[in-house]
Amino acid sequence: MDHPEDNRQFKSLKINKGVTDTPSISPYLKKKPRQKNFATTDFVEGILQGDITILSRAVTLIESAKAGHQQQAQQIIEQCLPFSGKSVRVGITGVPGAGKSTSIDAFGMHLVRQGRKLAVLAIDPSSERSKGSILGDKTRMESLSREKNAFIRPSPNAGSLGGVARKTRETIILCEAAGFDTIFVETVGVGQSETAVHSMVDFFLLIQLAGTGDELQGIKRGIMEMADGIVINKADGENIGQARLAAAHFSNALHLFPPPDSGWTPKVLTYSGRYNTGITEIWNMIDDYITFTKTNGFFDFKRHKQAKYWMYESIHHTLFQSFYRHLGIKKRLPQIEQRVLNNEISSFDAAKQLIDIFNL
Amino acid sequence: MDHPEDNRQFKSLKINKGVTDTPSISPYLKKKPRQKNFATTDFVEGILQGDITILSRAVTLIESAKAGHQQQAQQIIEQCLPFSGKSVRVGITGVPGAGKSTSIDAFGMHLVRQGRKLAVLAIDPSSERSKGSILGDKTRMESLSREKNAFIRPSPNAGSLGGVARKTRETIILCEAAGFDTIFVETVGVGQSETAVHSMVDFFLLIQLAGTGDELQGIKRGIMEMADGIVINKADGENIGQARLAAAHFSNALHLFPPPDSGWTPKVLTYSGRYNTGITEIWNMIDDYITFTKTNGFFDFKRHKQAKYWMYESIHHTLFQSFYRHLGIKKRLPQIEQRVLNNEISSFDAAKQLIDIFNL
Repeated sequence: MDHPEDNRQFKSLKINKGVTDTPSISPYLKKKPRQKNFATTDFVEGILQGDITILSRAVTLIESAKAGHQQQAQQIIEQCLPFSGKSVRVGITGVPGAGKSTSIDAFGMHLVRQGRKLAVLAIDPSSERSKGSILGDKTRMESLSREKNAFIRPSPNAGSLGGVARKTRETIILCEAAGFDTIFVETVGVGQSETAVHSMVDFFLLIQLAGTGDELQGIKRGIMEMADGIVINKADGENIGQARLAAAHFSNALHLFPPPDSGWTPKVLTYSGRYNTGITEIWNMIDDYITFTKTNGFFDFKRHKQAKYWMYESIHHTLFQSFYRHLGIKKRLPQIEQRVLNNEISSFDAAKQLIDIFNL
Repeated sequence: MDHPEDNRQFKSLKINKGVTDTPSISPYLKKKPRQKNFATTDFVEGILQGDITILSRAVTLIESAKAGHQQQAQQIIEQCLPFSGKSVRVGITGVPGAGKSTSIDAFGMHLVRQGRKLAVLAIDPSSERSKGSILGDKTRMESLSREKNAFIRPSPNAGSLGGVARKTRETIILCEAAGFDTIFVETVGVGQSETAVHSMVDFFLLIQLAGTGDELQGIKRGIMEMADGIVINKADGENIGQARLAAAHFSNALHLFPPPDSGWTPKVLTYSGRYNTGITEIWNMIDDYITFTKTNGFFDFKRHKQAKYWMYESIHHTLFQSFYRHLGIKKRLPQIEQRVLNNEISSFDAAKQLIDIFNL
C-alpha cells in the first residue's frame, strides 16, 4: 500500500450513506449540492460485504480521469488485493452477429442457477463499441440483468485501448473482493483488444457461427490461435448439421496449430444460446481446463505472467506518454516521420533525432 | 543526412584498398598493426559499385558495438538510402528439420540462374541459434555459397532480438544499394523473431513438412497466420502423397482464417528442396504476390508502415534502455516485481513506484 497513513484517520468511520462526512457549511456559500464522499475504508468494507452499489461507485472512481479519484481508487484496489484472485476469469469474444449477448445471458444464467456470482465486464475502446459490443446495450442480457448475483458493467466510455484494458483489469480485483467467483471479460474480436483480454483471463472462449467463409471476415487474424475453446453458436433447428460440420472443420484446423503452452488441447463444441442447449458442456470444458491447468501448474504460471505483464505494460505506457506528450516531440514528430516516409532519412536516424529532442 | 559536413572532406578520396589514409608514423610508436580505415564515402562508393568485400565490412560496422563504428555505419546507411528499397524482400521460416538450408539453396540457385542477385540474411538472436538457424552453418548452402551473385551473411552474434533485428533491417538497405534485387531474411520459427521479420519483408514464406502433428510442435502459434504462402517440403518419392494431403489440410485451415489485410489469398504449394522440383511454382507465387500488392497499393502501404514501425520501435527501445539501465530501477525492480508476484501490491502501483524512482 502506497499511503497507509492517508487511510488511518478514516479507520473508525462507518459508511454514512446519504450523509456527507464534512461539517455543514452555509447554504450561501454552496454552489452545487455536495457529492456523497465515501472514505476509502467505507469503500473497502462495502466491497468486502458484497455491496453492489458501493462496488459500482468504486468502479466509477477507477474510470474517473480526476487525479483525486484515481488516487483513492488505487488505495481501494491495494486494500482489496488480498481478497482478490479467487475467481475464474473467462474472456469471451466473437464477431458482431455471432449472438454474443444471448450467449452470455445463457452462460451467465447457467452459472447463477448453480449459485455462482458472476461479473460481466467489457474491454472495448469506444472506437470499437459501435462495431457490436453487447455491453453498450446491457438490456440485451435480459435474464442476467435481473439477477442480483450478476454484476454487469459496460466498458468505460473514455480512453484508449490501453486505458480501458487497465481499468477493466483493476475492476476485476474489486469484483473478486466483492465475492464474484466468475468474471466474464467480453470483447468484440475485431481489434487488438483480444491481446489485452488474453492477458487478464484464465480461459479464452471464441464464439463462432456455422459456415467457414464470410462469417470470419470480421474477426481478426491471430485470435483463433489464442482460443482455449471454440464454441459454435446457433446449433439448433436446421442449423444443427452445418454447425457440426463447422465444428469438425475448426477441430481439424486446430490440429494444424502447435499445441498451446498450457498443454491443454483446445476443444470445439456446438450449442444454442437461444434454445439453451449445450451450455452445460461448455461449462464442463472450462472447469476441466481450470482443473487441468491448476494440476500442471500453468494456472499460477499464467497468473504470475499476467501480473508481470501489467506491471511492465503500465511502466511502458507511462514512458510513452511522457515522450509523446513532450512539446518538442509533438512539434517535430510529424515532419520527421514524413522524412522517413519519403526515404530521406532512415527510421533509425529519425528515432535518434527525436530521442535527442527528448534529451533523455 | 545527419552530418553532411563530416563527409565533405572525403568527397575527393578514392578507395585505397590496403592503404591507410593517415600519414605513416614511426614503427616504434606503433603498438599493433593499424586497421584499414575506410572513409564513409569509400564505403558508399564501394557498396554502390557492388563490391562485396566493402559491403561485408560495412555490415561489420553495423554489427559493431563501438560508438565510432555505429556513427560511421549510420552515415553509410543514410547515403545508401536513396539507392535502397528496390528489392523483393522475402522472409523464410520453418522449424529445424524442415530442410530450410537445402530449400534456401534451391530457391537461391533458381533466382541466381535467372540473373538475379540474392542476399541471404538471418535474424535469430544467439539464444535461438542453437535451435537450428541454418546460417550458423552457411556451408550447408553448398551451391549458393559458391555463387558470386549471392551474398550470405549469418546473423550478428551479439545482442537481443531487437538489436539483431535492427541490424538486419539496416543490412538490407546496404545490400539493396549494392544491387541485390532479392533479399531473404531467414529465421527459425520458434521464437518471437517472426514478428520482427514480418516487419521488414514483403512476403512471408512458411516452410512446413508433410504430416499434421508432431512436426508442428516446434513452431510457434501465430506464425501460420502471418504466412503469405505455406510450402510443404520433401514432396518427393514416397512422400508425395502425404505432402499433397498436408497441403490440402493447410489449405482448408487457411480458409478458416479471416483474409489478410493485403487482400491476397495465401497459397499452399508442395516442393522438394532436395530434388529441386516445384521451385519455379513457388517463385511464380511470390512474383504474383508482388504484382498483386503493387497493383492494389498494399506493397507501398506495407513498406511505409514498416518504416514507421522501425522508427517507433527504435524510439521505444531507447526509452526502455534508459529506464531499465537506470541504477535506481535496477536496484529496486526485482523486489517490487516480487511484491507483485506475492499479491502484496498491484501491478499498477508497482509501476507507479518504479516510475517515481525513475523520476521522469
